[in-house]
Amino acid sequence: MASGKTPAENMLWGGRFTEWTGGLDPLMHKYNASILYDKLLYKEDILGSIAYARANAKSGIISNTEFTEIERGLQEVQKEWEADTFVIMPNDEDIHTANERRLGEIIGKDIAGKLHTGRSRNEQVVCDMRLWLRNQIQEIESHLVAFMKVIAARAEAEVNPPDLDSGVIMPGYTHLQRAMPVLWSQHLLSYGFYFANDLERLRETSKRVNRSPLGCGALAGNGFDIDRDMMAEELGFTGLVLNSMNAVGDRDFVTEFLQWGSMLMQHISRWAEDLILYSSTEFSFISVADAYSTGSSLMPHKKNPDGLECLRGKAGRTFGHMAGLMMTQKGLPSTYQKDLQESWEPMLDHVKTISDSLQIANGILATLTIKPERMKAALDPFMLATDLADYLVRKGVPFRETHHISGRCVAKSEELGIPMNELSLEQLQAIDSRFGEDVSDTFDYERSVEMRSAKGGTSRARVLEQVKILKDMLA
Amino acid sequence: MASGKTPAENMLWGGRFTEWTGGLDPLMHKYNASILYDKLLYKEDILGSIAYARANAKSGIISNTEFTEIERGLQEVQKEWEADTFVIMPNDEDIHTANERRLGEIIGKDIAGKLHTGRSRNEQVVCDMRLWLRNQIQEIESHLVAFMKVIAARAEAEVNPPDLDSGVIMPGYTHLQRAMPVLWSQHLLSYGFYFANDLERLRETSKRVNRSPLGCGALAGNGFDIDRDMMAEELGFTGLVLNSMNAVGDRDFVTEFLQWGSMLMQHISRWAEDLILYSSTEFSFISVADAYSTGSSLMPHKKNPDGLECLRGKAGRTFGHMAGLMMTQKGLPSTYQKDLQESWEPMLDHVKTISDSLQIANGILATLTIKPERMKAALDPFMLATDLADYLVRKGVPFRETHHISGRCVAKSEELGIPMNELSLEQLQAIDSRFGEDVSDTFDYERSVEMRSAKGGTSRARVLEQVKILKDMLA
Amino acid sequence: MASGKTPAENMLWGGRFTEWTGGLDPLMHKYNASILYDKLLYKEDILGSIAYARANAKSGIISNTEFTEIERGLQEVQKEWEADTFVIMPNDEDIHTANERRLGEIIGKDIAGKLHTGRSRNEQVVCDMRLWLRNQIQEIESHLVAFMKVIAARAEAEVNPPDLDSGVIMPGYTHLQRAMPVLWSQHLLSYGFYFANDLERLRETSKRVNRSPLGCGALAGNGFDIDRDMMAEELGFTGLVLNSMNAVGDRDFVTEFLQWGSMLMQHISRWAEDLILYSSTEFSFISVADAYSTGSSLMPHKKNPDGLECLRGKAGRTFGHMAGLMMTQKGLPSTYQKDLQESWEPMLDHVKTISDSLQIANGILATLTIKPERMKAALDPFMLATDLADYLVRKGVPFRETHHISGRCVAKSEELGIPMNELSLEQLQAIDSRFGEDVSDTFDYERSVEMRSAKGGTSRARVLEQVKILKDMLA
Amino acid sequence: MASGKTPAENMLWGGRFTEWTGGLDPLMHKYNASILYDKLLYKEDILGSIAYARANAKSGIISNTEFTEIERGLQEVQKEWEADTFVIMPNDEDIHTANERRLGEIIGKDIAGKLHTGRSRNEQVVCDMRLWLRNQIQEIESHLVAFMKVIAARAEAEVNPPDLDSGVIMPGYTHLQRAMPVLWSQHLLSYGFYFANDLERLRETSKRVNRSPLGCGALAGNGFDIDRDMMAEELGFTGLVLNSMNAVGDRDFVTEFLQWGSMLMQHISRWAEDLILYSSTEFSFISVADAYSTGSSLMPHKKNPDGLECLRGKAGRTFGHMAGLMMTQKGLPSTYQKDLQESWEPMLDHVKTISDSLQIANGILATLTIKPERMKAALDPFMLATDLADYLVRKGVPFRETHHISGRCVAKSEELGIPMNELSLEQLQAIDSRFGEDVSDTFDYERSVEMRSAKGGTSRARVLEQVKILKDMLA
Repeated sequence: MASGKTPAENMLWGGRFTEWTGGLDPLMHKYNASILYDKLLYKEDILGSIAYARANAKSGIISNTEFTEIERGLQEVQKEWEADTFVIMPNDEDIHTANERRLGEIIGKDIAGKLHTGRSRNEQVVCDMRLWLRNQIQEIESHLVAFMKVIAARAEAEVNPPDLDSGVIMPGYTHLQRAMPVLWSQHLLSYGFYFANDLERLRETSKRVNRSPLGCGALAGNGFDIDRDMMAEELGFTGLVLNSMNAVGDRDFVTEFLQWGSMLMQHISRWAEDLILYSSTEFSFISVADAYSTGSSLMPHKKNPDGLECLRGKAGRTFGHMAGLMMTQKGLPSTYQKDLQESWEPMLDHVKTISDSLQIANGILATLTIKPERMKAALDPFMLATDLADYLVRKGVPFRETHHISGRCVAKSEELGIPMNELSLEQLQAIDSRFGEDVSDTFDYERSVEMRSAKGGTSRARVLEQVKILKDMLA
Repeated sequence: MASGKTPAENMLWGGRFTEWTGGLDPLMHKYNASILYDKLLYKEDILGSIAYARANAKSGIISNTEFTEIERGLQEVQKEWEADTFVIMPNDEDIHTANERRLGEIIGKDIAGKLHTGRSRNEQVVCDMRLWLRNQIQEIESHLVAFMKVIAARAEAEVNPPDLDSGVIMPGYTHLQRAMPVLWSQHLLSYGFYFANDLERLRETSKRVNRSPLGCGALAGNGFDIDRDMMAEELGFTGLVLNSMNAVGDRDFVTEFLQWGSMLMQHISRWAEDLILYSSTEFSFISVADAYSTGSSLMPHKKNPDGLECLRGKAGRTFGHMAGLMMTQKGLPSTYQKDLQESWEPMLDHVKTISDSLQIANGILATLTIKPERMKAALDPFMLATDLADYLVRKGVPFRETHHISGRCVAKSEELGIPMNELSLEQLQAIDSRFGEDVSDTFDYERSVEMRSAKGGTSRARVLEQVKILKDMLA
Repeated sequence: MASGKTPAENMLWGGRFTEWTGGLDPLMHKYNASILYDKLLYKEDILGSIAYARANAKSGIISNTEFTEIERGLQEVQKEWEADTFVIMPNDEDIHTANERRLGEIIGKDIAGKLHTGRSRNEQVVCDMRLWLRNQIQEIESHLVAFMKVIAARAEAEVNPPDLDSGVIMPGYTHLQRAMPVLWSQHLLSYGFYFANDLERLRETSKRVNRSPLGCGALAGNGFDIDRDMMAEELGFTGLVLNSMNAVGDRDFVTEFLQWGSMLMQHISRWAEDLILYSSTEFSFISVADAYSTGSSLMPHKKNPDGLECLRGKAGRTFGHMAGLMMTQKGLPSTYQKDLQESWEPMLDHVKTISDSLQIANGILATLTIKPERMKAALDPFMLATDLADYLVRKGVPFRETHHISGRCVAKSEELGIPMNELSLEQLQAIDSRFGEDVSDTFDYERSVEMRSAKGGTSRARVLEQVKILKDMLA
Repeated sequence: MASGKTPAENMLWGGRFTEWTGGLDPLMHKYNASILYDKLLYKEDILGSIAYARANAKSGIISNTEFTEIERGLQEVQKEWEADTFVIMPNDEDIHTANERRLGEIIGKDIAGKLHTGRSRNEQVVCDMRLWLRNQIQEIESHLVAFMKVIAARAEAEVNPPDLDSGVIMPGYTHLQRAMPVLWSQHLLSYGFYFANDLERLRETSKRVNRSPLGCGALAGNGFDIDRDMMAEELGFTGLVLNSMNAVGDRDFVTEFLQWGSMLMQHISRWAEDLILYSSTEFSFISVADAYSTGSSLMPHKKNPDGLECLRGKAGRTFGHMAGLMMTQKGLPSTYQKDLQESWEPMLDHVKTISDSLQIANGILATLTIKPERMKAALDPFMLATDLADYLVRKGVPFRETHHISGRCVAKSEELGIPMNELSLEQLQAIDSRFGEDVSDTFDYERSVEMRSAKGGTSRARVLEQVKILKDMLA
């Protein structure tokens, strides 16, 4: 399978293979190369190299003049990337090789050849990845915050919408069975607090991503006493990955981010599931904007909630990347192994998927229409069975007994085919004599909602309190 | 987020959205579109459409003239793809839309508009995927067979290499501890039989992939009594996915293939692990060809088995795709949901990864050098402790007792610092009087190997028998 | 952490550790021991040992008398297990050690000590596991077949239930949006065919499970030329795991079974999801029997489909076991590593979960009540929009055009607030003049169902054809 | 399948099922029941109930006398559990039902029936789980800290062991190829810092676990204005899970802990892999104590590192539990679904596995013997090739050039079969004239180690600095 090509002249390790008569198996070259995706990090690679060269100049291992040339050259390279004029050559197997090759063409190999002094690709790769991911996480955080703001804003506005004479009350479900009336805003906030935890976790994860491995060498540390703190500061890192062997072999910052993202997508998958259900004809609680729906190629009447389905489906994709990367790392020896290259693509895809998904989710929520009258129509007197039990509790009946009594009222209502709130007082008293005239107050959804007034409950005041707490996180 | 664009004129469901003032959120358009990857299947899409139109002509729902035009037009479209002159337009969200749009431009919308009669994208997508994957599996099978042939060939040739006066005997390990002497060929074959099972499984999986969903409609079946068997035959399918609701919602053919591939890659990961160990300086049993190795950017002396490490690492990637797709499908309602679009990318990546990996593995094995003298040097008299126990078994001593006696010989050898095979007969008899002169025959690695002569054992005859069985599978 | 205990006298490797002053760390003993779960396989262990001893007697390495004693003793041990009188002793770390220890107490150590002659625990473990799993798979197959029979029976009976004047027609959904009318039986069969593939796959998997590793030794093969085929036959194996190194290190038979089971559970999760939806108040298509439902501790009116939710949830559990075992195996060196002990518990739990789940699913389906009138009420004229388009297709209008026309009819219907089937002929003709009097025939759900008469479609004849094919698989 | 039993009298929802003629399918009863494992949380359940009743007494919904009785009764129940005299009855499907049933027997149903007033099992389950896991995490943290202390202690002590005249220097590996000399302590610390991140993460996770859901009701909130903060404080929670719908449907505290644990186990798997390699005959850098090793049933000479292999293998198990639970939750509707019951067993098994694993790892590290002379013997002059390149760098030669020159020295050494450090000055100068007499200083492993003196490097001072930082985290 080996090709007949002579060894590439600028392969970094060219000196070693004197017996060489061919090159890498060309398929192996492709299998091994990362330039197709790691070129996205051209800027981080250049900034890292500048910081590294500056620190080497400070140590005196290169001169200030040399540093100035290197900096100028690298800035030139950066401009080429930005102007989309950078030409990737066949032997540019990764972004590091490509940038250094080009630097040599611009400032000459003598000085360019000093850039890598004491540095290893092992630390360089991971430095680029950490810088890039740190920046992406900031972006993602802003998308998450924007989405949460929509949640908070709708939750607040729709507690008492101006065009309704009552609140937006919907059936709350457990086991997908109608359980008790809740405010639509309470439903929105239930996800708001999932995302609040995601936000909290993201900030913690970000802290661990944003540490500098630069100056760790291949595995043993830097041999020219480089000032690691100075480099870290220049690059905006907030700390060091200290131990050199740890630094080059650790991809936990990716794994942790993937764990984070796949948990976020779990929340989005549940949120999407709710909204898909609510937008079905059977529920009809909401309507998804056409901007996030599509039709059918065969069935002219269809309007499908594609956006929500994509969101739900991508929970699998993000989990898969996390699972794959974890398996890749399992049982590896310490320090750098080539297997770790498999951390790149999941990271890149994860960032894109999460970033897009948060924006799509934001758009869907911002544009969806609620149908309060349909929600109201779905309320059902049986959902007040707990309130009926509570009524008797307030009269001193033990809860376990009230629960059974209320259950018998439900059964009687089903037996007679009369809605439970229309059972006569006599009928109720036949079940339990402690029912009084005031029992009729119980059959009121608004009242039921307002009764759940302990912290975190669905009463208006408690919902608005939650909105405030959520907003405070986002300020 | 909604854009101000007017609705795309050729959106398949355009008639539905009369209230439309904008288009899809442009990000949603990208999030939803599949053309970037499903264009790979342009040919399958065209062949499927031709078969479909032919069957519609047979039913009389389109005329033979119309069919001829459609066929001619589609062949034209195919040529454009092959000549790389096909231009993807902004509204070509997937390959099906793109091909049909182009067909309309070539043969006119009146006839082109009849292509899709009674067909749904739901069946079309899955038809294309099944056709493509069926073909790819054939390709993969050939790569797997080629790799297994290298295994069988080396295993056969290296039982008794012409340039050695003895067989290639190496330490067999369990728990990564030297256990008993085995032929290098036996080691090779141990993987050969993992791959034999993979081959067996792939052929079974292929059978289930290669079934036709065409003629199932959106979910309820075809309304023009189309001849499904005729279409299946034309496309080389060997059966039907019968039930229409099942056909459009089933992505098991992808899942099963991903399960298959991730198990294959498990075997490759273990094989790679062995060879990485054996190519370390500490073992030095083999040397990986330079065509599959790389050097270090910092350390001039390094030669790293990158090819093997990539293979091992990609076991994670392939598992991740399988895991992700399974999660995506979990708990979905029946028939088609947009979530299923997430089956595309894992399938495409899986095919590529597996196909490349098998070729790389082939190349590595075909070019690696074994070092029989280093294997031999690693043999150790303690590895004959079982043979020593067996010696006494043949004299009628219960195995449990012989195991303890042999253990005491090991201990005595360690205590005295004398290799076990150099303990004197007196020393052995002091441990157990039943040791006789002939015990010295025991300390012979060649003999130990030949003694394992039950079926599947490491004796030469049994190894050659295995080679034959393996080759028979590949004929 | 090490304890002060003296080494256990019957530890199999007792002879080795002469310098021993303590025992295993007691926590390590527990961490390492498998007796708590592998005792379930006492019978397979005993049958395997008898077959092994018989083959050793045939080879002459033990005498016939010794074999007879061993067989008698092992049968005694088996009786103790069956009578629940077997006492596990502290040093019985696994079932193999326990059985052999007890055998020695019954027939004396001299003969019992010959049982293990030439055998390794590595082959014994995997022999027990394969035997047991083979048997369990037969059990599982019978549960799967029983479940499929319920599907086929209901699908057949409910095509034309005696107490209904029409068929059981329900909305078929894609994207959880009402799509087209289908027979309830067609829905049932869509899952029937998922399970048909599961059955096909299980039979293939079973074939690979049911191969004998016995006679492979620790890794190098058997040293006493044992007759492997004879043992395999006695134990009901249908083939050998040939290569000795492969045999002791291969847990693919477990992995493959777990892959199988987690795919089965995916189907069950989707089926459960459908039924959970259909049993919600919003759909109300079915009612789950009380035998598979539970109530709420707080809400007296609730009736929750717990059985279905458990089924859906356990799709995660079974996937998790598969994922875990695959990760455990990734990158292991060849042959036996202790890591492989982690294949036990997932296998045991998987068998139990799958076996129970199939029986629960069977019970739920057998006892659930359908509500044909509710299904009918959910049919909606828009679901005939495809039929309306097809009507024009039959008049020669290109499908793409009919699709747009039908879409405009849908829009008109929504605009006017008139059900589509009640639009006047004039109103329809205002949209397209080709609509004729006979268009009114289109608005008929029964007719729509019968029109899907291509193979696999939802017409009665095609549904009954499917039932027949399914039943043929189960005969 | 339904049994003929009458409904259980103390089923919480007994009142509902008037048409009842049987009970739950007995298999469904088992499939659904959790008492076999959730009984482990009897104490958390009781403490939660006492706190709940106290808060209800404060609100006045039960009297102080009633509360006192409830508290007395529950303490009685707790004593029964602790004395192992509690008898689980057939209808005790979970720990909550069991405890309440028993309370009724002790204090009478009238008062006991008031315990659950306004409370739902949904909040009770999750309260118990959070309390229990919070406590377990404290335990796990202490095991993790103890293990890290061993790492720090050995790393410190073995920088300069009293019985050696030099430091403990070993080959540092990348790609499992000898790379550069490092201190054994640096290797230890590289894992120390993985675990330091685990510790940091655990503390963050713990914070989110330790929040109170009590007072959230079934989903809508508490209807008796219970004081949630008071209950949280009594139970040692540090905050509330605020939103009631979120509180009952959220199992992220389990998922996050499983993600944490599976990442920890990844580190342990890599650490174990290193030590398994190092304890092989080929490396022989360390020896694992017999307390964590076992022998072979067939091969008398074997000593297998079972403890380490178990640790490595269990990385799969813990990952599997995490993966399974994530799949279970994917796409669930909001609030409580029975599927969430599947969060119990992974949590329980995870806690046990992680807790045991940390203790085993601790024991293994505390008792393993290092073999400094074997490490030293494995050092190889080629590992100084980087130092040789650095030598020329200090003379002003660009690094890229020095890398090639050093590569040529390696090649020359291989060609001549002379160790690189024994090449004559002439031979070196023939490669590059800038080599001077002082080049011989380069060939010194001690010096090489000391040269890596930038922060985090392997020089002694930097290693001791790392030890200090690690210890500070553990103080």
